[in-house]
Amino acid sequence: MKLRATVWGENVHETTNQIVSEVYPEGMHNQIAKMLKLDGDIETRTATLQQDEHGLSDEVLANTDVLLWWGHAAHGDVDDAIVERVMRRVWQGMGLIVLHSGHFSKIFKRLMGTPCALKWREAGERERIWVVNPSHPIAKGLPEHFELENEEMYGEPFSVPEPLETVFISWYQGGDVFRSGLTYRRGAGNIFYFQPGHETYPTYYDQNVGTVLRNAVRWAHNEEAHANDPSDAPNVPVGEALEPIKERGPRLHKDGEEGLR
Amino acid sequence: MKLRATVWGENVHETTNQIVSEVYPEGMHNQIAKMLKLDGDIETRTATLQQDEHGLSDEVLANTDVLLWWGHAAHGDVDDAIVERVMRRVWQGMGLIVLHSGHFSKIFKRLMGTPCALKWREAGERERIWVVNPSHPIAKGLPEHFELENEEMYGEPFSVPEPLETVFISWYQGGDVFRSGLTYRRGAGNIFYFQPGHETYPTYYDQNVGTVLRNAVRWAHNEEAHANDPSDAPNVPVGEALEPIKERGPRLHKDGEEGLR
Amino acid sequence: MKLRATVWGENVHETTNQIVSEVYPEGMHNQIAKMLKLDGDIETRTATLQQDEHGLSDEVLANTDVLLWWGHAAHGDVDDAIVERVMRRVWQGMGLIVLHSGHFSKIFKRLMGTPCALKWREAGERERIWVVNPSHPIAKGLPEHFELENEEMYGEPFSVPEPLETVFISWYQGGDVFRSGLTYRRGAGNIFYFQPGHETYPTYYDQNVGTVLRNAVRWAHNEEAHANDPSDAPNVPVGEALEPIKERGPRLHKDGEEGLR
Amino acid sequence: MKLRATVWGENVHETTNQIVSEVYPEGMHNQIAKMLKLDGDIETRTATLQQDEHGLSDEVLANTDVLLWWGHAAHGDVDDAIVERVMRRVWQGMGLIVLHSGHFSKIFKRLMGTPCALKWREAGERERIWVVNPSHPIAKGLPEHFELENEEMYGEPFSVPEPLETVFISWYQGGDVFRSGLTYRRGAGNIFYFQPGHETYPTYYDQNVGTVLRNAVRWAHNEEAHANDPSDAPNVPVGEALEPIKERGPRLHKDGEEGLR
Repeated sequence: MKLRATVWGENVHETTNQIVSEVYPEGMHNQIAKMLKLDGDIETRTATLQQDEHGLSDEVLANTDVLLWWGHAAHGDVDDAIVERVMRRVWQGMGLIVLHSGHFSKIFKRLMGTPCALKWREAGERERIWVVNPSHPIAKGLPEHFELENEEMYGEPFSVPEPLETVFISWYQGGDVFRSGLTYRRGAGNIFYFQPGHETYPTYYDQNVGTVLRNAVRWAHNEEAHANDPSDAPNVPVGEALEPIKERGPRLHKDGEEGLR
Repeated sequence: MKLRATVWGENVHETTNQIVSEVYPEGMHNQIAKMLKLDGDIETRTATLQQDEHGLSDEVLANTDVLLWWGHAAHGDVDDAIVERVMRRVWQGMGLIVLHSGHFSKIFKRLMGTPCALKWREAGERERIWVVNPSHPIAKGLPEHFELENEEMYGEPFSVPEPLETVFISWYQGGDVFRSGLTYRRGAGNIFYFQPGHETYPTYYDQNVGTVLRNAVRWAHNEEAHANDPSDAPNVPVGEALEPIKERGPRLHKDGEEGLR
Repeated sequence: MKLRATVWGENVHETTNQIVSEVYPEGMHNQIAKMLKLDGDIETRTATLQQDEHGLSDEVLANTDVLLWWGHAAHGDVDDAIVERVMRRVWQGMGLIVLHSGHFSKIFKRLMGTPCALKWREAGERERIWVVNPSHPIAKGLPEHFELENEEMYGEPFSVPEPLETVFISWYQGGDVFRSGLTYRRGAGNIFYFQPGHETYPTYYDQNVGTVLRNAVRWAHNEEAHANDPSDAPNVPVGEALEPIKERGPRLHKDGEEGLR
Repeated sequence: MKLRATVWGENVHETTNQIVSEVYPEGMHNQIAKMLKLDGDIETRTATLQQDEHGLSDEVLANTDVLLWWGHAAHGDVDDAIVERVMRRVWQGMGLIVLHSGHFSKIFKRLMGTPCALKWREAGERERIWVVNPSHPIAKGLPEHFELENEEMYGEPFSVPEPLETVFISWYQGGDVFRSGLTYRRGAGNIFYFQPGHETYPTYYDQNVGTVLRNAVRWAHNEEAHANDPSDAPNVPVGEALEPIKERGPRLHKDGEEGLR
């Protein structure tokens, strides 16, 4: 069975900025989706901010193994209820790939619990992405480094939690560095942050970037259906303890009662 | 100079439940504060839900090195704006120690980005806390394990992110285990979660628990004043790049302009 | 293509101790190999201490995706040169699953860089293995906990490095706990330590244990062929720098010269 | 009481290479020691390869809180027994700071369990060290980045385990990046690797480098005396189990017997 990816695109600058609309005439989300399909094992759909429920209905999410997120100008317009819904699906095992300016998206900040801030400079400078963890599945098939001739600089310190693993670190012509590929797990959901992708440059046409995105979808996919919701907090009645115990001392709750939240 | 700790207590069951009021006649927050003062190097104040701004004004937080948080029945009553304020202070370097049922507090869930759920049973059973990281500063002066004859069982899986380090793991009489001491960092803030402390048992009178709390305050204290706010995202003008670069290609923003959020 | 697992067994107690030979008449390695074959996707061979080169020739290792290691009485008899050979293969991407008393094997201690010590008690007590990371591939298909009615107790503190992820924690009847499933990566090699498997008990006939072993082989397998040996330390001649630089200041080495080790 | 640091220097190129002897006429170890003393809270001694037991007798190590290690040309000449001795002291809680070419020292490779290899180029190029974890104690008092006008390039991939925390990442003029400040813990010992320090450049006269070294000594110092040797593996007799259990099933060992290693 094919992996089912959904590419979420903010789809704002593509329609309001001439440069961006020339680079991505069909929208960034459609170009990203095109890159995902190249090996034939990933089935993609797209969703955008402007659609009903931002295109992320319960049904869409239920049929998404991995969600990719690109946003920039309109983070604040994303409905909090949809953010909450996406977060719950991540906890239940949907993978999430956060791209470039998505570092400031509501969903990424909620999942990280940190500001997710960084330095930035828009100078079309050269970025060289170094593979620091060459045996990681996300690095499969990549050279030891690759270059994007024009990218936005994102510079350290990047205020995110210490990652599970650092996969890429970027060198910038202007003298900065950035941890450009980082993995996390939240509940049953695998999360990957990937730095490249400023909307005025043709980053999502780059073959190495395409390889990273496809590898990341495969890596983020969690085959294990998560039987129990990780947000469930079951009371275990005393009589059902795995080792026989006798109740002692005072208590607040009755057997099987729902806990306080 | 003394460390400045603030103990935040929900202070609900102490006034509404007879058992709890008998165990903690002056409130749990005051008993915790008393334990913190024993070595003389920690200056403590308390704050409660019922106070104006829950006792957590900007001024109080600005003068707090480490905040301890105990809540259970009224997580939902904590003002979102105060949660946001506490979170920002943690990012700037205030330590945070989350106690027992505080696993479901708004502040802990926001900082973790996960459900923070677990199993539970209120049977007054024996909990044995094992030190799995004996060289960690939080374990200083502890025996290799210690017991609480009556505690609430909290059982795995505990849906939190993989910690920086696991300090304690608990054994329960009824057959469960729990990672009862976990460390995290969010921005410049050190965070410690500690499991014991059900309100119907005299846990915060226990000398080993007191040692853990004092050690945790010392560990969570971040001496390094954080010069830059970790939520600041400065633009670096092209002319101020550390290596001389020439601007190339199109751009969205002007030099020094504030970025999109 | 099938995964290629090699089960290494010390094969000492099976031939010298009557109890063990009754529990594992064909040797522990053969019973473990049998469990690995159950799903049909893993091809297994065995190797033992007594064979030439302990059964771990260059050719065998070159054709092994994942090596499983069980040893206890004869750690000291394992040839240092073979340990070195196995370690290099792990660095190049061979998975390694270390079982039970293998915590004190030369290979595990070399890869961890720590004493790998623990408490122990041989009382045939009940061990309950809790899944603390239910979305991890090694936990696939397992219940939230499972029991081994008779196992050797291994107790904390277990002096290993902080793991990449903690998958299992065990509860023991006698009051101890142990991190019984831990993951590591060394070079390109994925490593999993799994606690159960004392030779006097029928642990490797248990269906849940079998599931863990098969999952662990699949997880440890690194599909990515590691193009560069992670122990290679290439000199980059100045003229081949990715950005044009001019040599400045004094130097010790000539271009392309091999470095000092 | 002052912290007690011992600076170990290989002391080979200082006496055999004219350039190095001009940069460090008193030896690199003495210059490093001088930098450590600047704040007055660290008491230093030095030890060199050429001394009896390489200057690292049991007594010296017993009176060392933190050991700094600089070696390059003569890693192979370091006695294995001394390496073993240092490793045990690290496990017991002595801090270890590994400098520059010490990445290939026997002691670092033993503690990491990986090849510790990297790319390198000796071109006197500019290195810019970025602080990626500004709230880490090792970064105290540093600017957000600092430069060394001439350093040896060390390039990724650096084949070390995923660190506890990444503190520094370096940018090189020639287009490479390197994780130049990494923390680890092995047993009770805190370990810090720091990249700068090629012997032909005056790196150890740099004030920011000095700040890093002093911070690192303070951070690596483990106040907690480690009561139990982390390499001790005690048998717990059945009768001394913390919860009453009855011995069941067969066993290999008698009560209190020493285990197999």
